[in-house]
Amino acid sequence: MAHVLSTSCCLKISSSSKKSYFKPSNESLTLFSASLTSKTCKSLMPRLVWHEKRLPRKCVVRATTLPTSQEAPTTQSTSGSLDGSNRSSKAKRAMIIGGDGYCGWATALHLSKKGYEVAIVDNLVRRLFDHQLGLDSLTPISSIHNRIRCWKSLTGQTIELFIGDICDFEFLAETFKSFEPDAVVHFGEQRSAPYSMIDRSRAVFTQHNNVIGTLNVLFAIKEFREDCHLVKLGTMGEYGTPNIDIEEGFITITHNGRTDTLPYPKQASSFYHLSKVHDSHNIAFTCKAWGIRATDLNQGVVYGLRTDETAMHEELYNRFDYDGVFGTALNRFCVQAAVGHPLTVYGKGGQTRGYLDIRDTVQCVELAIANPANPGEFRVFNQFTEQFSVNELAALVTKAGQKLGLDVQTISVPNPRVEAEEHYYNAKHTKLVELGLKPHLLSDSLIDSLLNFAIKYKDRVDTKQIMPSVSWRKIGVKPRTITA
Amino acid sequence: MAHVLSTSCCLKISSSSKKSYFKPSNESLTLFSASLTSKTCKSLMPRLVWHEKRLPRKCVVRATTLPTSQEAPTTQSTSGSLDGSNRSSKAKRAMIIGGDGYCGWATALHLSKKGYEVAIVDNLVRRLFDHQLGLDSLTPISSIHNRIRCWKSLTGQTIELFIGDICDFEFLAETFKSFEPDAVVHFGEQRSAPYSMIDRSRAVFTQHNNVIGTLNVLFAIKEFREDCHLVKLGTMGEYGTPNIDIEEGFITITHNGRTDTLPYPKQASSFYHLSKVHDSHNIAFTCKAWGIRATDLNQGVVYGLRTDETAMHEELYNRFDYDGVFGTALNRFCVQAAVGHPLTVYGKGGQTRGYLDIRDTVQCVELAIANPANPGEFRVFNQFTEQFSVNELAALVTKAGQKLGLDVQTISVPNPRVEAEEHYYNAKHTKLVELGLKPHLLSDSLIDSLLNFAIKYKDRVDTKQIMPSVSWRKIGVKPRTITA
Repeated sequence: MAHVLSTSCCLKISSSSKKSYFKPSNESLTLFSASLTSKTCKSLMPRLVWHEKRLPRKCVVRATTLPTSQEAPTTQSTSGSLDGSNRSSKAKRAMIIGGDGYCGWATALHLSKKGYEVAIVDNLVRRLFDHQLGLDSLTPISSIHNRIRCWKSLTGQTIELFIGDICDFEFLAETFKSFEPDAVVHFGEQRSAPYSMIDRSRAVFTQHNNVIGTLNVLFAIKEFREDCHLVKLGTMGEYGTPNIDIEEGFITITHNGRTDTLPYPKQASSFYHLSKVHDSHNIAFTCKAWGIRATDLNQGVVYGLRTDETAMHEELYNRFDYDGVFGTALNRFCVQAAVGHPLTVYGKGGQTRGYLDIRDTVQCVELAIANPANPGEFRVFNQFTEQFSVNELAALVTKAGQKLGLDVQTISVPNPRVEAEEHYYNAKHTKLVELGLKPHLLSDSLIDSLLNFAIKYKDRVDTKQIMPSVSWRKIGVKPRTITA
Repeated sequence: MAHVLSTSCCLKISSSSKKSYFKPSNESLTLFSASLTSKTCKSLMPRLVWHEKRLPRKCVVRATTLPTSQEAPTTQSTSGSLDGSNRSSKAKRAMIIGGDGYCGWATALHLSKKGYEVAIVDNLVRRLFDHQLGLDSLTPISSIHNRIRCWKSLTGQTIELFIGDICDFEFLAETFKSFEPDAVVHFGEQRSAPYSMIDRSRAVFTQHNNVIGTLNVLFAIKEFREDCHLVKLGTMGEYGTPNIDIEEGFITITHNGRTDTLPYPKQASSFYHLSKVHDSHNIAFTCKAWGIRATDLNQGVVYGLRTDETAMHEELYNRFDYDGVFGTALNRFCVQAAVGHPLTVYGKGGQTRGYLDIRDTVQCVELAIANPANPGEFRVFNQFTEQFSVNELAALVTKAGQKLGLDVQTISVPNPRVEAEEHYYNAKHTKLVELGLKPHLLSDSLIDSLLNFAIKYKDRVDTKQIMPSVSWRKIGVKPRTITA
């Protein structure tokens, strides 16, 4: 098995069988390591570890790691040549950018289970955010390397891993040339609205990272895999809360006696949500100008922890965020109920959004891949299954908690965001259903299950992280420091 | 006179009276030089000159230069304290970001003439683009330093100069704290659609530079001058060519029995135009979240060379671009007619856009400043005076050329862009007229004047630069190199 690595900072490679150090180089280095013989999930493979003393402040890892098993090259060659000459219309090779994240990890496993050849591309910066902000997932999560090894040992399926930053085009180009994706599922963005509102540098990071990363993906598709289908994660937050029905991406407008179907107006409410609006406009242009085929999944708020695949083994468990930066309403409420913290409703609680179970996230992505957009088509699906107001969610969690004997209180806290707290909201979401989505609607049993998970891991809850700590209005230009 | 300089790369300071070298430092250096005694426009003042051997590939100059005359500190102090305590509602201090460019320079002089205290903020990168691409203005243009000295000697008016990159927030913060603007006119963006379509790196540069620069301006206003009015240059190209009337920024939509007024849908057609769409969304959000007051001037295609102020002296002359990257339709046609090159119509020539005389650009900006947006208001004006198709412009230039005895031919060349060549186009543009705009409509005499200018400078025309060299469809990921 070969590991091809090129790096712009100093890395330490360690394995159970040997240790080697190397310095940055423009040339690729080929290292050989012990092969995988164990059927367990324990680490026998080389790992990339930060060499702390040499870690620059902003360090880009450009490491292309070939699959974590000896069989991988064989698997790759037996899957057949997938160049333009003999590609079937059905996507076989799916690249999951951001495949170590909450939605990305669940999606990678689901597609692997469904028979796709899967590669994960991730720079793991989401884990760095946790370290920097002093946060942690409610559930303990394994390293991406152990996750993939575990999946291989349980299912025999190989997931390729490319660790690096898609804002580094040289890295991204190598992943495209190596993996040759038929579909790219792009979760690889900074995805928290509060994170983008911490300070100026995080706002700038969010827009730069998300917009430039997506531009690079578009250029990579144009240059290396022009028939590749881009499945991009957008957000329902791009639309804001207009006083008319929200359509799926486009709206037909009759104005002064003439009619046209135009992109639905966007009114995003954080630098994060805005970055997704920018992406949507950029993608739409490249579909028109270059013939890119793209599906923009404007996803609602995702809840839940388990999918069929992540539930198979503890090393496959997904992350579960409950903190004020990365936690979203329903998941956070369940943790609050479990530890006896009042449910924190921001402001009046009339804020209404679309929600979906993570089992439907993975189902929707699979449906989008299996039914690709046409060349030049920019297609938008609203990816959620039900609408709830924050107050409605709080009531559901209160009821479920009481059944379990919990004393659940709800408080209103000053809204850290700038948003309407009472508003009309009616968003269409029929296109994925038409493709075959069978929704997992929010049920008492799902909330029970989430509450029981939260109770199981309640000793891991850091209650200091629950309250909102980021204000939309108070964001400043100075880097905000985090204290212990 | 004091020059306060801080720099992240090695600079050489030279003047007629002395030479000094210094290395980068985190501390400000104060240098003293000969004072201005001459009434001519000749250079007696210190200049910043690149130290070529030490010039890094991407070098940021962060140089805060106080005014180019001894009187400057006096002028600053006699203009009164402009902190929150005694500011009048009328803007007195106007910062022109991108004030060395085509529209920015004309605007800076116009506002100075009208009695505003003016500062120019510019990193001069537009001049670097000319060097790198082998282009040049039809008209010889003086350095920004000589321009400002000439203006001072002719009018007694001081224009402050801050040379640096607004993507460098530390630099921008210093300009805000030093100058304390009441209005910021933001022309400081990469403004060419073809430039943004040369290759991946220019596409990424354009979006990064424009989006992050504008984010920094918004943060600077919030942090240092929250009552400052942002006058941002957008473009009519943000709207694209919808099949319905184009309104000014917002459209009232009735849909399924409900009505709302929403941002007008955007359909931009280059990475440059898209960057302006991104800016508009970001600005709208900060108006709502932070109470920023902003006017977005969605400008049409600007033509013309002379304003009352730039015509006063050769050292004040404006740039005039005719090349395939920075030249726009009418200006380019006049140069083509002057040198006997056929007018190059892209495709069918039915592409219709809004146009305006540069004398109206400066008038519109002045009107926007004099009638500021309210706190929290995001106001959009469509800044053009007439619509023309490319074919109509070619016909006007042909007719004017024939009167001057020129043999003017027109050819259709393959359209390098992806755009509709025959389409409906009807854009509203009443808001600036309501504020008092008196348009300079396109006249035979204006075209005569442009043609005569082009004839005067015809020996400076590089005919190799006239044809389009950038293709929307052929843009690639490799850096495009320029050969002699």
